Amino acid sequence: MSSGHDAPAYEIAADDETVHSAWDNDLDPVRTIEPGDVVRFTCRDSTGGQFGPDSTVADVADLDVDRVHTLTGPVAIDGARTGDVLEIELLAVDHRGWGYTVVLPSEAELGLLADEFPDPSLYVWEFDGDVARFANDIAVPLDPFPGVLGVAPAEDGTHETFPPRSVGGNMDIKQLTAGSTLYLPVAVDDALFSVGDGHAAQGDGEVCGTGIEAPMDVTCRFDLRSDLSIDQPQFETSGPFTSSGRDEPMYGTTGIADDLQEAARDAVRQMIDHLETERGLERNEAYMLCSVAVDLKINEVVNAPNWVVSAYLPDGIFPEDRRGSA
Amino acid sequence: MSSGHDAPAYEIAADDETVHSAWDNDLDPVRTIEPGDVVRFTCRDSTGGQFGPDSTVADVADLDVDRVHTLTGPVAIDGARTGDVLEIELLAVDHRGWGYTVVLPSEAELGLLADEFPDPSLYVWEFDGDVARFANDIAVPLDPFPGVLGVAPAEDGTHETFPPRSVGGNMDIKQLTAGSTLYLPVAVDDALFSVGDGHAAQGDGEVCGTGIEAPMDVTCRFDLRSDLSIDQPQFETSGPFTSSGRDEPMYGTTGIADDLQEAARDAVRQMIDHLETERGLERNEAYMLCSVAVDLKINEVVNAPNWVVSAYLPDGIFPEDRRGSA
Repeated sequence: MSSGHDAPAYEIAADDETVHSAWDNDLDPVRTIEPGDVVRFTCRDSTGGQFGPDSTVADVADLDVDRVHTLTGPVAIDGARTGDVLEIELLAVDHRGWGYTVVLPSEAELGLLADEFPDPSLYVWEFDGDVARFANDIAVPLDPFPGVLGVAPAEDGTHETFPPRSVGGNMDIKQLTAGSTLYLPVAVDDALFSVGDGHAAQGDGEVCGTGIEAPMDVTCRFDLRSDLSIDQPQFETSGPFTSSGRDEPMYGTTGIADDLQEAARDAVRQMIDHLETERGLERNEAYMLCSVAVDLKINEVVNAPNWVVSAYLPDGIFPEDRRGSA
Repeated sequence: MSSGHDAPAYEIAADDETVHSAWDNDLDPVRTIEPGDVVRFTCRDSTGGQFGPDSTVADVADLDVDRVHTLTGPVAIDGARTGDVLEIELLAVDHRGWGYTVVLPSEAELGLLADEFPDPSLYVWEFDGDVARFANDIAVPLDPFPGVLGVAPAEDGTHETFPPRSVGGNMDIKQLTAGSTLYLPVAVDDALFSVGDGHAAQGDGEVCGTGIEAPMDVTCRFDLRSDLSIDQPQFETSGPFTSSGRDEPMYGTTGIADDLQEAARDAVRQMIDHLETERGLERNEAYMLCSVAVDLKINEVVNAPNWVVSAYLPDGIFPEDRRGSA
């Protein structure tokens, strides 16, 4: 709702003074800004730089999970009071030309099918224009967004960054791309906003636990909305809702079960089988591809006792001579 | 995969000899067809004609739920054997110019928020070209599809039509529009396919328990695919993935909880609040609009202990002078 120039008033680099890996309403702000200000945040990847373009699966064993997610901030918004709504207009989200997808070993308990994928995997993506290249000539469209956008919780003490909360955080809403606007309920004075966990692409669900993880610059305009009242994050977006930005051919697998999570697991299992038997991928490749390019939708959640969750694979990510599936 | 002319080889009218309201592998087929045949099914609405264009909410009390869903069939597919895959190519889905959305009273336990909407509602939609007209000049795009597509279950006896199963049935996958292809695992010889529960539009989730319920004609080409092996329904579709068929502005509300169903409830509750406070709808209208035009997506199901489900409301269903929400 605010007007004003889009050039950042402030640049916040990611250095040891400006990153943190836990939510805490007692953190000192790295900067205090005014409503209407534009800020460009430099964000490390979610691990804080523990993986790079030359990383291999052997490096997964050395991962320090306590540094996940490395966030940039917090920024204090002058005048923000508990009960206000913080408006965050996402003006630009810029990756740096590479990213990776990782499956942690089962012990980490990250991933919808963690028990079925005991061994770690790591894939480093090369970006090529608007797509990222994968096995079998698959090209995944890039739609970068920050997986974590949040303000400090009301509860004192340190809080892990993995779970999202009513104040936002690790929501992994892939439609929070540049051009979107996020509304967060302010839980403490000054709001204390932080951002990070850049994803160059992700499927709805993020089923293996990671998207295309990538360092990014995120430029936001902040405003306060005392006219709004919300209990949980809300947002405006124009997508992406499909990989091409319009209706396109997709292959769907269904999960039908009396529990939505089990239905989601079933749909993803069937999609992994499909990618293995019909598209020639290894199972760990299929799991990672589901996490970055396959969308989970709740088709119905009312026909007791069974609900339907389907997984949607865009045909357009395959080379033209290998589209059309069954 | 079959070629052949699209003109139906068979027309199956909906009369007392050709409709049924339970799954049963002992039902006599109304017709035996060959793979490659095209069949046009006339389908009553899900209640079997208990509501009409002049119905009012007073008629909900007289609803005989045992007649829901009234399906047309079954059709026997000659040569289908247990373990085969039945391919159903949806060639045409034609409504008849009207439909309704109903909220049953809480006792019926239908609907994601059944306990919060104790009283029945009924709204009869007038179709106007490609849209259906609602309160406050809202226009919901029509994308007709059959909510129920299934084959007979392996288990003997009668089975309710409400829950979907591994053999399909009441899946309410709104992308199973004309042009889509559905694959169902055949559980008994001759497959015994039935169809019905036409929806002229529906949101992913069908949260109040009904879409825009409408009588329809559904034209399908059948084939057998012994080269495929599936345990649950799979499909090919080109959407709709948004109401306009392309990326478009949407308002999103989030549900963040340690259970996907509760997260879905939260997202829908927030959307109902938004529709009431920002868009001027009555709460029962808002609940029905969510069911026919709002999509539920699983944003992430890996950031334990909290998952995120969001509800997406297309801005384009509002008149131009009332778009742009917060």
